[in-house]
Amino acid sequence: MPYSRFNTALIVGAGSGLSAALARVLAKEGIKIALASRSIDDLAPLMQETGAQAYPCDASKRADVERLFADLDAASATPEIVIYNASYRTRGPFADLDPTEVEKTIAISAFGGFLVAQQAVKRMLPKKRGVILFTGASASVKGYAESAPFAMGKFALRGLSQSMARELHPQGIHVAHVVIDGGIKSARRAEPADKPASLLDPEGIAATYLHLIHQPHSAWTSEAEVRPWVEKF
Amino acid sequence: MPYSRFNTALIVGAGSGLSAALARVLAKEGIKIALASRSIDDLAPLMQETGAQAYPCDASKRADVERLFADLDAASATPEIVIYNASYRTRGPFADLDPTEVEKTIAISAFGGFLVAQQAVKRMLPKKRGVILFTGASASVKGYAESAPFAMGKFALRGLSQSMARELHPQGIHVAHVVIDGGIKSARRAEPADKPASLLDPEGIAATYLHLIHQPHSAWTSEAEVRPWVEKF
Amino acid sequence: MPYSRFNTALIVGAGSGLSAALARVLAKEGIKIALASRSIDDLAPLMQETGAQAYPCDASKRADVERLFADLDAASATPEIVIYNASYRTRGPFADLDPTEVEKTIAISAFGGFLVAQQAVKRMLPKKRGVILFTGASASVKGYAESAPFAMGKFALRGLSQSMARELHPQGIHVAHVVIDGGIKSARRAEPADKPASLLDPEGIAATYLHLIHQPHSAWTSEAEVRPWVEKF
Amino acid sequence: MPYSRFNTALIVGAGSGLSAALARVLAKEGIKIALASRSIDDLAPLMQETGAQAYPCDASKRADVERLFADLDAASATPEIVIYNASYRTRGPFADLDPTEVEKTIAISAFGGFLVAQQAVKRMLPKKRGVILFTGASASVKGYAESAPFAMGKFALRGLSQSMARELHPQGIHVAHVVIDGGIKSARRAEPADKPASLLDPEGIAATYLHLIHQPHSAWTSEAEVRPWVEKF
Repeated sequence: MPYSRFNTALIVGAGSGLSAALARVLAKEGIKIALASRSIDDLAPLMQETGAQAYPCDASKRADVERLFADLDAASATPEIVIYNASYRTRGPFADLDPTEVEKTIAISAFGGFLVAQQAVKRMLPKKRGVILFTGASASVKGYAESAPFAMGKFALRGLSQSMARELHPQGIHVAHVVIDGGIKSARRAEPADKPASLLDPEGIAATYLHLIHQPHSAWTSEAEVRPWVEKF
Repeated sequence: MPYSRFNTALIVGAGSGLSAALARVLAKEGIKIALASRSIDDLAPLMQETGAQAYPCDASKRADVERLFADLDAASATPEIVIYNASYRTRGPFADLDPTEVEKTIAISAFGGFLVAQQAVKRMLPKKRGVILFTGASASVKGYAESAPFAMGKFALRGLSQSMARELHPQGIHVAHVVIDGGIKSARRAEPADKPASLLDPEGIAATYLHLIHQPHSAWTSEAEVRPWVEKF
Repeated sequence: MPYSRFNTALIVGAGSGLSAALARVLAKEGIKIALASRSIDDLAPLMQETGAQAYPCDASKRADVERLFADLDAASATPEIVIYNASYRTRGPFADLDPTEVEKTIAISAFGGFLVAQQAVKRMLPKKRGVILFTGASASVKGYAESAPFAMGKFALRGLSQSMARELHPQGIHVAHVVIDGGIKSARRAEPADKPASLLDPEGIAATYLHLIHQPHSAWTSEAEVRPWVEKF
Repeated sequence: MPYSRFNTALIVGAGSGLSAALARVLAKEGIKIALASRSIDDLAPLMQETGAQAYPCDASKRADVERLFADLDAASATPEIVIYNASYRTRGPFADLDPTEVEKTIAISAFGGFLVAQQAVKRMLPKKRGVILFTGASASVKGYAESAPFAMGKFALRGLSQSMARELHPQGIHVAHVVIDGGIKSARRAEPADKPASLLDPEGIAATYLHLIHQPHSAWTSEAEVRPWVEKF
């Protein structure tokens, strides 16, 4: 079991291939993992594999997030590493978008990131240590047609990360934003036969998250991006 | 009275020095102006000067925005030019921010921009013409310490503008985002004696908005920035 | 003849459709124009139309540029407005590029911009006024495959412009960089029948240059971009 | 001796603290190292420590670079990893800059990067594998006052890297650019007593280079940045 500066992690928005890959790679480091997700019904296999605990939580609800962190405190699992991986999106021609769905997209993709990060920071500040990683997307840096809501949510999350990095790096808390510029391979999303290696491998992405978690504080990265080798960008 | 392609304008977030300068410069072009603001109590002098009509509206409330556009339709003032100039901010050490205030910052600074833009676009699409301008800030492109909420709102507004520009330019609607990179001179905010010309003059900014409104569609700008000549950047 | 703060202009890299459009729009403002180009053979019609003088000059050669400015001084045509519009490019698979051509691309696209700007600044500084505009391209902000040399030259020119803007704005000299993000319509380059309005109109671009030249110094733009309304970006 | 996909490396611009740290970290991976520098006089201790070979080379001279790679081929040291770490700078008020020094700044900081990368790519393409890393600086993304030449060189190097990444990633060659946003700690440059941890530790930076070298090709980074935790940005 290799050395790690950190002993506990929280992954919010668990369920996707990336969250599972992150849980696996952190478990190999001997880190105690908590998974939080709106629905935890499908997490049993991952919990068994990684020893993770799962917590139901709607990250866009303040009360849910406060209860999550209280539960983690009570379980001696106050996270030293927090990964915000939750997002939601609605899309379509601009004039046809449903405002309620737009609001939900921003709430889950960005405001939830704030709620989770604030609870984490309150606990990290006294110890002057911790890592908070936000999962971005192509839409974090480029607003695509017929996808205004996701652009709003993902741009906002990047603004949150930049502001936190400027404020919290000098206080010992490493904050970084990772732009995942491409589709992620999953059980539901295989690579098209005519486009081999055109999707990001979750394990490949997790390698970069792990690097950021281990980065020495004399040379911290606050923004990183990863994409498949064949991706047009 | 010089020629203008457009006859009607809506300025949302009226009240500040910039909105007043925009109203004056548009009035000189012979454009019929509507001002929308949470409070319209102080707008009487500007209304008298520019012939503008004022409408009370909380741009973050869907019902308010829908009523505003219905009123404009009824008054034969459906806007061909829309300027979204509303914003709100809370700031402070990250751990101390009030989540309700953070939510309000995002709602007014970004979600309101969506609501207003969507109503405008629904009316512009059939005619395949119109201009929508969003007022950005330094915080639109750089997240500052102790100002995460405003960064979230302003980044989101820029994402909205980019996405709309990509989708709507080919449909004849010009969408642009203006980063105002510095403080704006106003009655309440004079230049410090030791820093002459260190604030943006609202009339100076308005010249760039007017340029964007008049831009020929073979060479449209989607993102512009302005700052005082002595500004460090 | 409308008012202009400036009386003299120099356009370097004359010949293309953009340079001609710029000469025409400046001539309408009553500005005395000098055109500099490696070859001035084809400039007679434009000279007759705009009253411009033409000067042969390889902008990448220090002696040429110094002689150009000495000639302009002698002709009482020391420029208050300078537009650097010269560029050169070689392209192809990276491994096949000719290093001599790469060097020439950087020399004309970027180093020439430095040489011209420095001579201009030496003359503008004592008067604390002047405008220097650099013509950028999509390649100024995005390095395309099989086009490394042009990316090097255009990125370098943008770096030059940014550095000059930071240093010289407080000294009264307005420096700006315009990204022209698309192809420019010309006699040699008509729009494809199936893609109407897919090219930038030189007159449309010139409107933005003229706006920058007239911008009040309390709200200067240092970077702008223009593209056709139907352009994918 | 840990596993590595690569067996040979070339570090150009050797001598600084970063190059030495890179040589040490690569040597630990069992990689055979070549160091190239205008002057190799001071490299003896590092050669002894890491087993590296040193080659005199002015990277801005085509003949030098071609001879360097021929020598490496002859020594069975054709590099699978290439790190371009050479730079040069002149600075001062814009009007006072010496054009010859400006030319040299661009030649060493950017054109040399092209020359070295092209020789490397010619050898990597047939094997469809290799890593090329460019060392950037704050000036790669922001042109500072009184430092136009370095901005030109460093912007150009970033343009080169972007263009190469777009072209060569699909061919199996990983190209990345690392913005080192701050001063690097060295024997000559200690941290000021009142600003502890304000300089980048070369070993810290080297950890990020090593991460990029090991990145799985389903999730490659093309641009990264590192800065000290207390750095204002």
